[in-house]
Amino acid sequence: MSKIKPRTFKGARDFLPEDMLHRERILQVMRDIFKKYGFDPVETPAIEYLDVLTGKYGEEADRLIYRLNYKNGTKDEAALHYDLTVPFSRMVAMHPELNLPFRRYQMQPVWRADRPQPHQGRFREFYQCDVDCIGTDSMIVDAELIAITHEILSVLKIPGFLIKINNRKILNGISEYIGAGDQFSDIYTSIDKLDKVTWTEVEAELKEKKVPSSAIEKLHSLISKELTLDALKNELKNIEIAQHGIKEVEEVISYLKILNVPESHYKFDVSLARGLDYYTGTIVETKLPAYPHIGSLNGGGRYNGLIASFGGKDTPAVGISMGLDRIFTAMQQLNLIEEVKTATKVLVGNFGKETLEASLKLVAYLRANNINTEFYPEDAKLKKQFSYCDKKNIPYMCIIGESELQENKISLKKMKDSTQVSLSLEDIAAAIL
Amino acid sequence: MSKIKPRTFKGARDFLPEDMLHRERILQVMRDIFKKYGFDPVETPAIEYLDVLTGKYGEEADRLIYRLNYKNGTKDEAALHYDLTVPFSRMVAMHPELNLPFRRYQMQPVWRADRPQPHQGRFREFYQCDVDCIGTDSMIVDAELIAITHEILSVLKIPGFLIKINNRKILNGISEYIGAGDQFSDIYTSIDKLDKVTWTEVEAELKEKKVPSSAIEKLHSLISKELTLDALKNELKNIEIAQHGIKEVEEVISYLKILNVPESHYKFDVSLARGLDYYTGTIVETKLPAYPHIGSLNGGGRYNGLIASFGGKDTPAVGISMGLDRIFTAMQQLNLIEEVKTATKVLVGNFGKETLEASLKLVAYLRANNINTEFYPEDAKLKKQFSYCDKKNIPYMCIIGESELQENKISLKKMKDSTQVSLSLEDIAAAIL
Repeated sequence: MSKIKPRTFKGARDFLPEDMLHRERILQVMRDIFKKYGFDPVETPAIEYLDVLTGKYGEEADRLIYRLNYKNGTKDEAALHYDLTVPFSRMVAMHPELNLPFRRYQMQPVWRADRPQPHQGRFREFYQCDVDCIGTDSMIVDAELIAITHEILSVLKIPGFLIKINNRKILNGISEYIGAGDQFSDIYTSIDKLDKVTWTEVEAELKEKKVPSSAIEKLHSLISKELTLDALKNELKNIEIAQHGIKEVEEVISYLKILNVPESHYKFDVSLARGLDYYTGTIVETKLPAYPHIGSLNGGGRYNGLIASFGGKDTPAVGISMGLDRIFTAMQQLNLIEEVKTATKVLVGNFGKETLEASLKLVAYLRANNINTEFYPEDAKLKKQFSYCDKKNIPYMCIIGESELQENKISLKKMKDSTQVSLSLEDIAAAIL
Repeated sequence: MSKIKPRTFKGARDFLPEDMLHRERILQVMRDIFKKYGFDPVETPAIEYLDVLTGKYGEEADRLIYRLNYKNGTKDEAALHYDLTVPFSRMVAMHPELNLPFRRYQMQPVWRADRPQPHQGRFREFYQCDVDCIGTDSMIVDAELIAITHEILSVLKIPGFLIKINNRKILNGISEYIGAGDQFSDIYTSIDKLDKVTWTEVEAELKEKKVPSSAIEKLHSLISKELTLDALKNELKNIEIAQHGIKEVEEVISYLKILNVPESHYKFDVSLARGLDYYTGTIVETKLPAYPHIGSLNGGGRYNGLIASFGGKDTPAVGISMGLDRIFTAMQQLNLIEEVKTATKVLVGNFGKETLEASLKLVAYLRANNINTEFYPEDAKLKKQFSYCDKKNIPYMCIIGESELQENKISLKKMKDSTQVSLSLEDIAAAIL
C-alpha cells in the first residue's frame, strides 16, 4: 500500500474516548428526556435524492447541500441531508398510516458545505438531535418542546441559558406593517444574522435585496426598541396576522408557567428570526448571553406547510433541534467537562504462562460480574503495565503473580492512593464496586 | 414549495419507532459489552478525503466507494467512508501519543454503492459496530473479540450461530502450496464468494484471473476436504507461513476454552477468506448455518500493515465489525422481535380548559417521577383519545375530567384489561411503576 498523508476532512473531526464518553452521556441524557416527554426514536438515511432536499430551506441554505457524484443531472441525483426536519417530513408524507399526533426524536449527523468555525462549535459534519410532533396545532406541544430544552440544559448543568421565543406570524405582520409584505422571506433571512453581524451590514443586505429604504428604517426602529409582547401588540394592533402570532406566544408562555419552566430561562424576542424558509409559527432559539461567541445551543419552530409539500395531507408540525456539538463546545468552554479517559474499571495484569490461565479466568469472572475489565495482552514488566494503567486513569489493577497463585489470592491495587489488598476471588467484585 | 415525490434513496431505509426501539436496544447491548471488555468509544467523520480510503480494500471494493461532488480531480476529492477500519487506522496514524494497546469501539453508518439485497440484510447505507485493539500481537485479543461476538449474540438470544475462524497466513501458505504464491490476493477474493456462489463460478473467476489450472485443481481438492486443523498441519508441513498461521489459530482456540466460549459456537474453516485486502492474520466471520440466505452477522480479523500505510509506526491491529442491520434482519426472520410501538408508559387525556391546568400538572408530576408520559394535545372526544392510546399500545391512560377535578382524584385506566381505579396524585406513580 502506498503511503498517504493521514488527515481529516476540513470541518470534520475525530473523537477520542475523552470526548466520546461525554458525548455518549449527553446523547443518553437527551434520549431519556425525549422519551420521558412521550417521544419515540426514528431514523432516516443520510443520503436523500437531491430534489427531496432542495427548495425547502431557502436559496442560501440550498447552496450548502453536499451533493454526491451520483447520477448527476438526472432525477436520481443524490445528496447528504442538510438537517433532519426535511427528511422527517418526507418520511411522514410516505406514511399516511401514522397514528397522529406522532412524536419522534432523531439523533444523527448532518452535513453543510459551510465555512467551519470550530471555536463557535460550527462544523461541516455535526450531530442534530431533533424532537418533533406532527398532527396538532396545539401550542401545548410548542411549550413542551421549550420545557424539554430547559430540562436537558439543566440536567447538563449549563448555567445562564436563555430560550428566545418569537413567531413567524409576528415577523410576517412586521413585514406588512413596514410596507414590505411580499419580501418577508428576504427580511427574516437578514434579521437572522443580527446576532453575528451589525445592523449596518444587515441594512446593506436588505438594500441589496431591494427592500425600500423607508421599510428598512421602520424595521430598525421597531426591532431596536426591544418591545415587550404587550407593547408590540399595541404597535401592530391593525395587523391581523401579527395579533394571531402574539396570541400564540402568549399561549405558549401560559403553558410554560404550568410546566414550571422558570421565567429567567425564556424570553420573547421580536428580533429572533431563524434563517430557514419553512417556519410558519412559533420559533425558538437558545443562547448563552454571557458567551455570545458560542452559537445557538438549539433552535426550531413550527413548519405547518412542509409535509404537504411532499404531497402529503396538510399536517401541522413543530420541532426543535438540539445541537450536540454546540452543547459540547459550550460545556468545554464553561469547564463543565471533567477529564475522563476510559470507562474501564480494572486492568488485570499479565505475568506470563504460569499465571495466564488464572488471570484470564479472573478477567472472565470480573466481566461476568459486570465490571468493565481489560486484560493486559502481553507479558510485559510490571512497571510498564502499571504505568499503562496509571496513564489511562483506570482506577484498579489486579495482579496474579506466582505467590498469589500459590496462595489462591489476588492482589488488588487502588491506583489513586497506591494501596494494595490481598483478596480471594469471592471478595474481589465487592471490593471494586 | 413545489410538490416532490417523496421517496427514499435506493438501498437506504427509514426506521419507525417499532424498528428503532429494537435497534437502540441492540446498540446498547453492544455498547455495554464492548465496555465490559475494556473498549472505549471513538468516532471518525463520515466524509474522508478519497485518497485516505482507496487502495486499502482491493479493487472491487474501491469501486463501491461513494464519492462526493467535491473538488473532483484534486487531492481534496472527498468520499463517504466504506467501513470504519480504514478511518480508524488513519486516526491512529494521526495520534502517535496514544497509550498502547488502545482498545476502541465505533458504531456508525457506512456506505457502499452496491446492489441492495434487503432480504439478506444487504443495504447501501448500514451500521457497522466495530471493536478493535491496536498495539499488540497477542492472540489473547483475537480470542477476546470472538468472546465478545459470542456474548452479544447470546444476550440477543440468537440461536445456532457459528463463528468461523481462519488465518490469512494459512491462505497465503495454501497459495504457495498450490504454486500460485504471487496470486494470493486474487485467490482469497474469489474463495470469499464460495458461500454465495458455486465452485464452478469461483473456478471461472480464477481462470479469468489467470490462475493456472493445476493450481485451481489443487486448491479445490484442499478446500473441499474440509480438513481439520491437524490434518491441514500435516498437509502443509513444509510451508512455513502456513504453520505459523495454524499455530496462531491453535493459540486463539486455547484462549477461547479458558474464556468459556462453548465449542459448539466456533469452528476452524479453511475456506473462510474475507474479501478485503488489508487482513494479515486471524480472520473470523459469523454465520447462521440454518439460515444461509442471511449474510454474515459479523466479520473481521488482523490487519497489521494498515496503520503503517498512513506513515504511522508499524502497529499490529485486530478487530471485528458487528453488522447491526444483519443482526436485526436475522432477529426479525427468527421471530425474536417482539412488537413494540412506543416507549411511552402513560397517556394523560385532555378534556378542555376547565381541567387543563390540573392535567398538565399531572403530566409534569409523572415526568418528574421518571415515567414516560405523553399529553394528548387537543381537547378531543374521549373515544378518540382512548383509541389513539390503544392503537399506540400505551399501557396506561390517566383521566382528569370534571368529576375527578372536584374530588381531587385521577382515574387510571389499564389499557390491557380496561380496568380503572381512582387514585390521588401521591399514589399514582407507584400504581404505574
